Amino acid sequence: MLPRVAGNSDLEAIATPALVVDAGALEHNLATMATALPGARCRPHVKAHKTTALAARQHAIGHVGFTCATPREVIGMADAGLGEDLLLANEIVHPELLATLAGLDARITIAVDSEPTIEAAARAGIRECLVDVNVGMPRCGCPPDDAGRLAELARDEGLMVRGVMGYEGHVVGLQDRAERERRCGESMALLAVAREAVGGDVVSVGGTGTFDCNMSGTEVQAGSYALMDTAYGALDIPFRLALCVLATVISVNPRNRFAVADAGLKAFGMDHGNPTVTTFDGAETETWYCADEHVVFAPAESAPLPGVGDRVRVWPAHIDPTVAYHERMHLVSGSEILETWPIDLRGW
Amino acid sequence: MLPRVAGNSDLEAIATPALVVDAGALEHNLATMATALPGARCRPHVKAHKTTALAARQHAIGHVGFTCATPREVIGMADAGLGEDLLLANEIVHPELLATLAGLDARITIAVDSEPTIEAAARAGIRECLVDVNVGMPRCGCPPDDAGRLAELARDEGLMVRGVMGYEGHVVGLQDRAERERRCGESMALLAVAREAVGGDVVSVGGTGTFDCNMSGTEVQAGSYALMDTAYGALDIPFRLALCVLATVISVNPRNRFAVADAGLKAFGMDHGNPTVTTFDGAETETWYCADEHVVFAPAESAPLPGVGDRVRVWPAHIDPTVAYHERMHLVSGSEILETWPIDLRGW
Repeated sequence: MLPRVAGNSDLEAIATPALVVDAGALEHNLATMATALPGARCRPHVKAHKTTALAARQHAIGHVGFTCATPREVIGMADAGLGEDLLLANEIVHPELLATLAGLDARITIAVDSEPTIEAAARAGIRECLVDVNVGMPRCGCPPDDAGRLAELARDEGLMVRGVMGYEGHVVGLQDRAERERRCGESMALLAVAREAVGGDVVSVGGTGTFDCNMSGTEVQAGSYALMDTAYGALDIPFRLALCVLATVISVNPRNRFAVADAGLKAFGMDHGNPTVTTFDGAETETWYCADEHVVFAPAESAPLPGVGDRVRVWPAHIDPTVAYHERMHLVSGSEILETWPIDLRGW
Repeated sequence: MLPRVAGNSDLEAIATPALVVDAGALEHNLATMATALPGARCRPHVKAHKTTALAARQHAIGHVGFTCATPREVIGMADAGLGEDLLLANEIVHPELLATLAGLDARITIAVDSEPTIEAAARAGIRECLVDVNVGMPRCGCPPDDAGRLAELARDEGLMVRGVMGYEGHVVGLQDRAERERRCGESMALLAVAREAVGGDVVSVGGTGTFDCNMSGTEVQAGSYALMDTAYGALDIPFRLALCVLATVISVNPRNRFAVADAGLKAFGMDHGNPTVTTFDGAETETWYCADEHVVFAPAESAPLPGVGDRVRVWPAHIDPTVAYHERMHLVSGSEILETWPIDLRGW
């Protein structure tokens, strides 16, 4: 059952589709994480919200270091005065972008996993790096048994090697907790090999799905926990769905019992599947499909059809790409818009 | 086999991911459409490119009327001086937005399919409408046998009813041409019933997939034909893939024979499936999956692995949401960037 949220006044007036963040749910999520992994134990990943105003809330609750996925995220965080300890947890070889990062008034650490990434970083004047280690997901990261050699090369090139990073992205979404813990342990055993060879203080790991079962890192790169989505909402983790897309019913088909609202696949990351539509009484509906600017859905047989002009809430299956499609998010309490935040770290 | 495109100099310098449009392919696509459906016979849909600079090219080749999916597209087109005949082929009931559209220095026609949409348009001062008719796809549109009643209501409310609109969106992607033609005919038979009852001069239909088999409309709302994608590229229509995302290889895994480039699911509409990666010699690879900022792919066994820093081209499966993720597109000829166009109609 998805959250039931009242809606009227302020929210009723805004144009749709619009990203809406429930202030209470966000507060709960931030506080829950800050209790479980206080201060530097959590390095929030900004790729999941791309919003410096939200990052400032995470900073205020004690997390001073942040994880970024793109140079623009790093630059935007530094520009927003949130650059005490920024990790670009991604490889990059573009000389001008690297030089821009090196010139920021911020502490920048970059992931490296190969000779070319180390050489490009060193040449551009980057000062600190983590060795990115492949811990089982087919993506970036060197083989664990090559991490020591790369750390040595990085030090030879003049880089400070702060430690290792390993993201068990193939594990974070596993439904069964025992399985999640077991496979997380396997990944972390691989990372331990690399850590031993690399040295340094930092072992940067994990994500929202493993925040409470990965105890082998010095810090967890959790991002989705702040806003959440229906995919992570299906796991047994203590975070609430805080973000939805407010939409307006623009067409109703009584003969075939479906309705159409004005938020479509351009308003949602679709890679995790369809979003879920709830009417304002909190009733879940069946999503038929999304077109570019439409979601087509059917209420339960026992429920009434909505009317044209009614508002619905549409809950994304994947938070990161959803946020990246929008220009702003509204922080709301009930029907009141408290603040409107630009999603200022999106794009490239 | 996807297009083979040379790459160096200008293109090599830009940061990735970046949208790249091949000027020759775009030119071919625009000319092909303008020959098949000259002037007002094609009403290009701007939702597929969201770029007024590209719309200006379509205007220059003879298409003076345009189709839009969102109020922002309408406003942006009017602001760009391309407002001779703008159709918002979508329902809308938001009073302020409707009033903004009514106040534009442009000719605005709006789709209506119900009493509330007619009343909202009339109240806001909108002058012209089309009756949107459901021709078989479960989305917007009134039942064909209700179109006459709605036209009468609209005229009673003071709206000029220009005619009917019916989009056979469930047909445009059918691979088999005979099947596509047959089912298109079925949809258009439904629209003919409505047309008879509604009157007016305009019968606005179709899309890129049915541009050459739907002869019953006065105009075709084709959008994807200009830039294309791999889904439409699989049909027997004479348009070329003109847009890809330029990406950089940032990690290579020789042991497991895969590579990672820096364009992920935030750079592609993913609802039609994975994008396709080609190396610069034109060789197609196997896409394993996309993460937020990464595409993971494997070259054929007979092909060499790319190196870190190599550029690849990534071809989206669905053009509309792909373009909507990006801020700009580069028009290129070979390795030269001819123009850079802001994607100024995106967002809401």
